[in-house]
This record gives sequence, structure tokens and C-alpha cells, in this order.
Amino acid sequence: VTLAWVDGEPAASELIADRGLHYGDGLFETLLVRNGRARFLDLHVARLAEGCARLGIACDAEATLSSAIERLGPDATDGTLKVIVTRGDARVRGYAPQGDETRRVLAWWYPGPVPARLDSFNVVLLAQRWGENPLLAGMKHLNRLEQVFARRELAAHGADEGLVLSSGGLVCSGTQTNVFLWFGESLVTPRLDRCGIAGVMRAAVLREGARLGVTVQVSDIAAPALDQARALIFTNARIGLRFATRLGARELEQPDALMRLAAAIEALDA
Amino acid sequence: VTLAWVDGEPAASELIADRGLHYGDGLFETLLVRNGRARFLDLHVARLAEGCARLGIACDAEATLSSAIERLGPDATDGTLKVIVTRGDARVRGYAPQGDETRRVLAWWYPGPVPARLDSFNVVLLAQRWGENPLLAGMKHLNRLEQVFARRELAAHGADEGLVLSSGGLVCSGTQTNVFLWFGESLVTPRLDRCGIAGVMRAAVLREGARLGVTVQVSDIAAPALDQARALIFTNARIGLRFATRLGARELEQPDALMRLAAAIEALDA
Repeated sequence: VTLAWVDGEPAASELIADRGLHYGDGLFETLLVRNGRARFLDLHVARLAEGCARLGIACDAEATLSSAIERLGPDATDGTLKVIVTRGDARVRGYAPQGDETRRVLAWWYPGPVPARLDSFNVVLLAQRWGENPLLAGMKHLNRLEQVFARRELAAHGADEGLVLSSGGLVCSGTQTNVFLWFGESLVTPRLDRCGIAGVMRAAVLREGARLGVTVQVSDIAAPALDQARALIFTNARIGLRFATRLGARELEQPDALMRLAAAIEALDA
Repeated sequence: VTLAWVDGEPAASELIADRGLHYGDGLFETLLVRNGRARFLDLHVARLAEGCARLGIACDAEATLSSAIERLGPDATDGTLKVIVTRGDARVRGYAPQGDETRRVLAWWYPGPVPARLDSFNVVLLAQRWGENPLLAGMKHLNRLEQVFARRELAAHGADEGLVLSSGGLVCSGTQTNVFLWFGESLVTPRLDRCGIAGVMRAAVLREGARLGVTVQVSDIAAPALDQARALIFTNARIGLRFATRLGARELEQPDALMRLAAAIEALDA
């Protein structure tokens, strides 16, 4: 028999043995619900399905997200839905999964629309860098201490977002966003094969950019290229596309072609 | 108001908002209790205290572990005590801690002595490597997906432990152990300033080795040095010191000087 306590009291929680809690052995999605519709649901489903396949978690991603959305009910028209899928309860002690765990789905509803945008969105280059592991790169998994540290460093700067390089010195992402760099003719976003999270809004920009005539490339971007970038866009599913007004002391542009792209994506009924 | 569900039912768990679950924002200790005594308690306390300081979690490490041990009661003479300390409940959505969270302490008791040792302890060099981040290195934090992946790779080999290099190609650790290499005159263990967990039994070997006349060095160890190592020792708080019988196809030694060191540490009344 295994005994367990939470803050000194016998544990009553159904989550006490969950491998998400013990090891961060799971994934999450954060969906923006607008006018009663979860935006870019197909992209969330695709990412969750890929993450489950990589972690070896048996889970129907489409059914999981759809039933979480249905459970919100008709009054939940605007807000943020967070869904965590963990591998489920540990069957034995230790890191190794046994393969017969039952995945657990957790969901949270944060009602209310995304707050109105401020005029400025100041970005600083953070000192800390993301560790690199191809096995984890791109996934929206539950091991997020690096982001916790990054947000702590950002808080000390008082800026709106922090840009983080990879351990190897390539541009990777914001602390909770993906990044696109504009060099005047094309938009470039970092490859995410060694670190970073493949954001849903990043995928949307890649898909819609092509449709709307803006060339978007995925590439390695060395840190010095930041000095050449005329505009920087930070994206996530919740805030959409945000143009950096400054990177450190340097003022950035907000080119018309990109503003049109952002408006077009914002207006999509998805 | 935030609503939450676990597997489709309204969440009753006191852990539903815990940042340990959401981000792996916390630490753990695994203590071996033998003859009614938690071994190397001072080293566990020191590591937990350092981890809390690095993460910015306000927690009295000594009081936390002592009261978990007391709660076991007098019948819990032999077993494994796991303690997790998380930053506590999220005060707002998002990665950034607010600084006013209340740390949560979770504890599990797995009764029963460590199983008897098998004669062989075969080790393989795994293909995957640990990502490097100095901000996380050494800590026994809750972001353990790399270990989950490593144990999955190990399972495919059918060996007893897997040796893992750092992303930069240095020897780092086993999947759930620290490693010491014996080159004939001295014992060397990797620095853990870029990846790895600073194990309590590793600290015990460093401390007791000095006392018992075995020189133990902490150093960078490039992967090719593995071919020169005559013996490999894998350590953790639960299994103590285990001599690798093989690394891949190569047979390893179990030198008398090291066997005496292992026996002396095993016999310590701590």
C-alpha cells in the first residue's frame, strides 16, 4: 500500500498519482474561444495529436478537444479554454511509462475576451537561452520551467515580451510566443527542431501567409540577423499577431503588408 | 470565475490549479528509509533548500522533510519516501509566478526495502542526449520528460541502466543515476553545471570518498574517455552504488578499492 499526503493531510486528490504532476508527462493546448467558436481548432487538434504520438500517449485529439468545447455550453462565447492531456496515473514508481496507463484530460475555462491591445509592445532580448533537445522540440508539453524562468527575467525588465535564443545562439521564440522577422521582402520564422514550441498562431501565419501572398520562410536565424530585421511579429493563439514597437532601444517598423496580413488572420472566422 | 474538469467531471482536486501540474514548477526528493532512519537527510535538505532558492519558492526544507518523516510513524521502518514541493496554486493564468504563491508539499510512502541486487548491472550508451540549461542544471525539479524518453529508449535495449551524454557530447549521467568513472587511480564524476541532477548519493560519494582516502574529482568528461574507464559506478539515493558489469559489449572491472568505498558508504548509519 502506498500512502500519500497533501500539505500534511491524507491525499484525497484524483491527481495524486498523475504522471503530469510527477514528471510533466503530458501536453496542453490553450484555445481562444471567440463568438462561441474555438479558433483554429484543426491546428490545435493536429498539434495535440502529434504530441501524443511522440510521447506515446493513446488519445483521440479531435474527440478530446471537441468534447471539452461542447462541455463549455452555449453561454461560453468568449474566453480561453486550456486543456491538459497527461499520460495518466503512474502504474509503478519511476520515470518509465508502462504503456498501459490511461490518459487523463483536464480542462479549464477562463471566461472573458482577451484584453484590448496596448499601443506599444516592447521586447527585450533575454540573457537566458532555451536548452536544446530534438525529442522535446516543438511540443507543447508540460515541462515549462524554462518559461517560468524566462518570465521571471522578463518581469525584471518591465517589457511586454522577451526574445529568447537557443543554447546554440539561434533566434528561437518569445517567452510565450513565436516570432517572425521581417527583412523587407519576406517573413522568416525560426525552425523549431531543437527547442521552442510550434504555436498554433505560427502555423496559421504560415498557412494564411501563403494564401494571402506573403512569403513566409522557416529557417535557422542567427542572433546577429536581429539587427537587420525591420519588423518583428510575436504570435500566440490568444493574442494573435503583435508587432514589436521596440527591440531593446531600437524602434521597429509596422509595414503595411504585414498589417494587412495580421488583419486578415484576425478576421478569419476560425 | 474559472471552471475546471477532470476527465469530464467537475474538478474536485485540491491540485487542479497547482503550478507543479501545469508547468512542473517544483522540486522533489526521494529518500531511502532504512531501519527507521532516512539516509543522508542532511544532503536531501541541502539540495531541496538550494532548489527552492533557485526557483524562488519560500519553503523551509529542513522542516518540510522532517515533518514528512515524522508523519510516517514508527512502523515505517523500511521504504521509500517521495516528497514534492511545488510553488503552489497559480494566482493568475500564465507562466509568470506572482511571488505570493503558497508552496505545497506532497508526500508518498512506498513501503518495503529496496529489492536485492542482481549480480549483473548492464549499461548501454543511449543515443539521446540531455538538453543544456545552466538555470535548471543540477536541480531535482519536476520537468522530467527527458528522463521519461530516456527510460523508453532504455527499455528497448533491455539493459539495466542507460548512460546519457550532454547535448555538447560530455558524459553526464544515467537515466536515474549519477555516474563515476574509474581510470585506475582516481574516480571522476561529471560536472553538472549544464545538465543532470546533483544526486544525494553522488554528494555522499564525494564526501565519504575524501574521508576514506579515495580521490574523487568533479570534471568535464568527454565521451571518448569512456573507452579508457576501467570501472563505472552508478549511484542514487535508493540503490546506493552499483558497479556496471558491462558498458555495451565491454566488460568492466570492480576494483577492490572501490568495493571497499561502496561497502563503507552502505554501512554508514545515515
